[in-house]
Amino acid sequence: MIGRSDVQVVDICTPPGTHAEIATAAAARGKAVICEKPLAVSYAQAVEAAEAVRGAGVLNAVGFNYRRLPAVSLMKRMIDEGVVGTIRLWRASWLSDEFVDPKIPFDWRFDKTMGASTIADLGSHLLDLALWMVGPVDEVGGQSETFVRSRSSQQVTVDEASSALLRFESGARGVMEVARTAVRRPCDFTVEVNGDRGTLVFDYSRLNELRFGEGADDPGLYGMRTIRAEHESHPYAKSWWPIGQGVGYGASFINHLGDLLERWPDGPWEPDFAQGAAVQAVCQAIEEAASGHRWVRVNEVASRSVP
Amino acid sequence: MIGRSDVQVVDICTPPGTHAEIATAAAARGKAVICEKPLAVSYAQAVEAAEAVRGAGVLNAVGFNYRRLPAVSLMKRMIDEGVVGTIRLWRASWLSDEFVDPKIPFDWRFDKTMGASTIADLGSHLLDLALWMVGPVDEVGGQSETFVRSRSSQQVTVDEASSALLRFESGARGVMEVARTAVRRPCDFTVEVNGDRGTLVFDYSRLNELRFGEGADDPGLYGMRTIRAEHESHPYAKSWWPIGQGVGYGASFINHLGDLLERWPDGPWEPDFAQGAAVQAVCQAIEEAASGHRWVRVNEVASRSVP
Amino acid sequence: MIGRSDVQVVDICTPPGTHAEIATAAAARGKAVICEKPLAVSYAQAVEAAEAVRGAGVLNAVGFNYRRLPAVSLMKRMIDEGVVGTIRLWRASWLSDEFVDPKIPFDWRFDKTMGASTIADLGSHLLDLALWMVGPVDEVGGQSETFVRSRSSQQVTVDEASSALLRFESGARGVMEVARTAVRRPCDFTVEVNGDRGTLVFDYSRLNELRFGEGADDPGLYGMRTIRAEHESHPYAKSWWPIGQGVGYGASFINHLGDLLERWPDGPWEPDFAQGAAVQAVCQAIEEAASGHRWVRVNEVASRSVP
Amino acid sequence: MIGRSDVQVVDICTPPGTHAEIATAAAARGKAVICEKPLAVSYAQAVEAAEAVRGAGVLNAVGFNYRRLPAVSLMKRMIDEGVVGTIRLWRASWLSDEFVDPKIPFDWRFDKTMGASTIADLGSHLLDLALWMVGPVDEVGGQSETFVRSRSSQQVTVDEASSALLRFESGARGVMEVARTAVRRPCDFTVEVNGDRGTLVFDYSRLNELRFGEGADDPGLYGMRTIRAEHESHPYAKSWWPIGQGVGYGASFINHLGDLLERWPDGPWEPDFAQGAAVQAVCQAIEEAASGHRWVRVNEVASRSVP
Repeated sequence: MIGRSDVQVVDICTPPGTHAEIATAAAARGKAVICEKPLAVSYAQAVEAAEAVRGAGVLNAVGFNYRRLPAVSLMKRMIDEGVVGTIRLWRASWLSDEFVDPKIPFDWRFDKTMGASTIADLGSHLLDLALWMVGPVDEVGGQSETFVRSRSSQQVTVDEASSALLRFESGARGVMEVARTAVRRPCDFTVEVNGDRGTLVFDYSRLNELRFGEGADDPGLYGMRTIRAEHESHPYAKSWWPIGQGVGYGASFINHLGDLLERWPDGPWEPDFAQGAAVQAVCQAIEEAASGHRWVRVNEVASRSVP
Repeated sequence: MIGRSDVQVVDICTPPGTHAEIATAAAARGKAVICEKPLAVSYAQAVEAAEAVRGAGVLNAVGFNYRRLPAVSLMKRMIDEGVVGTIRLWRASWLSDEFVDPKIPFDWRFDKTMGASTIADLGSHLLDLALWMVGPVDEVGGQSETFVRSRSSQQVTVDEASSALLRFESGARGVMEVARTAVRRPCDFTVEVNGDRGTLVFDYSRLNELRFGEGADDPGLYGMRTIRAEHESHPYAKSWWPIGQGVGYGASFINHLGDLLERWPDGPWEPDFAQGAAVQAVCQAIEEAASGHRWVRVNEVASRSVP
Repeated sequence: MIGRSDVQVVDICTPPGTHAEIATAAAARGKAVICEKPLAVSYAQAVEAAEAVRGAGVLNAVGFNYRRLPAVSLMKRMIDEGVVGTIRLWRASWLSDEFVDPKIPFDWRFDKTMGASTIADLGSHLLDLALWMVGPVDEVGGQSETFVRSRSSQQVTVDEASSALLRFESGARGVMEVARTAVRRPCDFTVEVNGDRGTLVFDYSRLNELRFGEGADDPGLYGMRTIRAEHESHPYAKSWWPIGQGVGYGASFINHLGDLLERWPDGPWEPDFAQGAAVQAVCQAIEEAASGHRWVRVNEVASRSVP
Repeated sequence: MIGRSDVQVVDICTPPGTHAEIATAAAARGKAVICEKPLAVSYAQAVEAAEAVRGAGVLNAVGFNYRRLPAVSLMKRMIDEGVVGTIRLWRASWLSDEFVDPKIPFDWRFDKTMGASTIADLGSHLLDLALWMVGPVDEVGGQSETFVRSRSSQQVTVDEASSALLRFESGARGVMEVARTAVRRPCDFTVEVNGDRGTLVFDYSRLNELRFGEGADDPGLYGMRTIRAEHESHPYAKSWWPIGQGVGYGASFINHLGDLLERWPDGPWEPDFAQGAAVQAVCQAIEEAASGHRWVRVNEVASRSVP
């Protein structure tokens, strides 16, 4: 496909361990490249891919599609507008049960060099939102565990569950948990910020809603609002249904591609590989913190991997 | 009061920094002692109090009243019955906004030697449940932050927000967050366990309910049950209302005192000061992990403080 | 008890069919009378009781305790303050499963002359709130059904499920449903009003909350607020817990009795027997509408039963 | 378009008052016809359209798209499988705020002969589900109200809010409410059935979920399950996302058209015009009950309108 002259954009949907190589090859042929997340299975690979697209001067994007959910996009906009004030706390978790059953046979998802860690596979979505909404992460602590260590007589090399503590450069603090071993939690993903003036909560199980609590609000109405993120003034709303009807998962992809196509061919595309690599640096810092049993600075990872 | 011969039980509701001294004095006069949580502001103080009641041979209890909420008690019973299998993951958070307003003047709650850390004040409830449901904690990582560092020109010495990673002796992993600076989160407290066979979720904002997901359940009914923790077979239910009516916060105290009185004067009372001290050891380990920027073993704290 | 001189207040908790007689006897001895709801099993009986207490000049109250839940009381206050504007629509339902099992043996609850209809037993709570919040009902339509018509070889004479359409004198419209045959619905009770300016929703399963949608609110925050009905400015809040902790069913009784005792011995007590009789007139109108298959004016019932 | 030979299927999305004429013309040219709901603004018109497509022998379908939501389709399947037993009670409501603002100028939606009543416009969706899940309706009571009776100096001839009592031929009872004047209720649509063995609840605001309570279930787990209607065994699930991701409103249309295309050109299509006319008969019976202030038998409407 990379060789075809009638293909202008390549969307890489293969296992993460193959992303960098494919992206590099596609960029070398002048293709714009969309890469599903995580960008790579290591920061070094991510940098390699980012360098390749930068060097080739091609448009490039990472498939952090959740940014394009209307409610998540509204959350970002409200943060930027200052409604929560200075962010102090960020928390996010992603709970799934996809690895609970020990009888699931070994496949590439259980091989870290091909499928990436759970920190990167699930956590990169959350960390992308963290960097986007809160800013750069300075330092992390972490832990990881694999409960079913062997499948089909092969060693499982990915973490099944990991959690991390984050200190952002701004001074905000964060907590993140990702797990693929939470029974009857299919894909339960939440992100919350607490600022000095307000709170915003997104819960994927109610993906058309955003909860908002405002410190300066009438105390007699103490509590949170549930915003239906479909008002015509909200991101993407005009392209979708009347308020109350709701979009699904698919809308995140459609909105993402819509945004990219609107900026074709001049760009910029966002988030791009450089941002994908920045997320990967945090993922790797958490991986190292977990295995090394210590706090790790993101810059330490980043500086080590720069060519 | 301690001097009165017609008082048999003392319930200590003073600031945490005064608990050990009062408990010691009451025990010395032969009073049974109930102490509100946390037992102390340091593990050393907690041990001192525990030694005092043990030495005096008086009944003693710590006011971890949330154990006595019907749904929390049912959660413990279901775990003990094995419905979730081996616990792999534990997570808990307690979000409040009581310290958000920087204009709240300094009082003893902002002085760690009197009010205890937020890790101990809010977290001790969560950690009591952790030790009760999952077992001893081996090692912890942590971080703490204080955003409003001075009030009424006095230095605030407690953390406003802290989070921790836990490794239990069983191999289970945990994540805990406590914060008093989450706008419009009045007292939002959740505890969840994921075992290899099931999930249980308690959310204080719906305190009469317990959510339960069972891996072996009919896949065509994929999801979780919301158990109304008021069935006549459930803990404490027979003493309360018909199913569906619901109890409030007060029931946790009434149930606790009911349990203690039922065992008067022979005991044992539960949780007792020894358990309160065990919780305090984990709190202190998290405090040390946060300030020392390193993982801390609970036994390291415990062994250091033993007389 | 009625004969004892040291008893000043009688609280009648016997089956509804006995209320009028006991209330009349108690009033004749000068006792203040609290009568659990419904006041009677017919409007004629209710009027008899109301006349008795009025004639005897004794304080009297009907146990519509749900008025005294903080969130319900706040709902009434907000309506009175005009936040929803002119009420156009009222809806309420009460779903229970207490009569689902056909093996439950016959007892007085299945005998309409003793236990009252389900319209009166469950519906009187809802209709009390309707009259309190929206005003008098002009006319009703209704339907009733009994699915298990015989128990222990005795005929069941109460409705198991009924529903009604209401036209209020103000022009507002209402819908009410009561059922004791809704599987796994223990006591699910909701009340909602829609005015020309706003909406208020109370759901008993979250009894410390009140949802509020305001038409004039910022459209960019489209949705409803979830008010935690425990702010210190809210009804009853100062007597209870810090915000976020929550009360249970028992608080409705305690608040009710607190209100009555505060007004002892001068009164007035509220809701009183006259209000209880007004509710009973609507209940009976719905009963007649259901059995007569026609709309029934409440005044038709009321005028027929006046002495 | 009807005249074009390369058009095989016509989807009529014009105002309801024009449906019958367009459908008749399209059928006369041999086109298959999909008609958005409601099929017409009167039962007579609906019968005319149904006769036309029957006479022409063309495939025909009414756009009751909500049937095709996975959770609604699962609800139907579970009812057919008997999991709730014999249905006793059905309730449904649809609350919107689209007509709240009195400044919205007059357009065809406010003209009953063009836009159909709110009973037909919103209620036909609910009544289609009622006939599909519970069976034919025997008799109805109803009420309707229009609060803003004139817009742009023109008389509003549609109801803004209506409610109805239903007796099904099976003996089940139903309650339905539709309103376009419920502030901050964008499109809140719920359907519930209570059978002698179980309860099923669908709430559009959580459209990927179905709640299920089973009478024979373990009483110690008293409550309802929240089924995530995306398991691979569920209707339409294999065509969509992994469990937990969720579909939106659009999926109802895509699933509907998918079903129709799978059966092209042999049919049958479902629901068809005959079913659309059956729904319209119930709508009209409710309209007549509301205006006539009496119970109306659906057969009375149906027999009157048959050619």
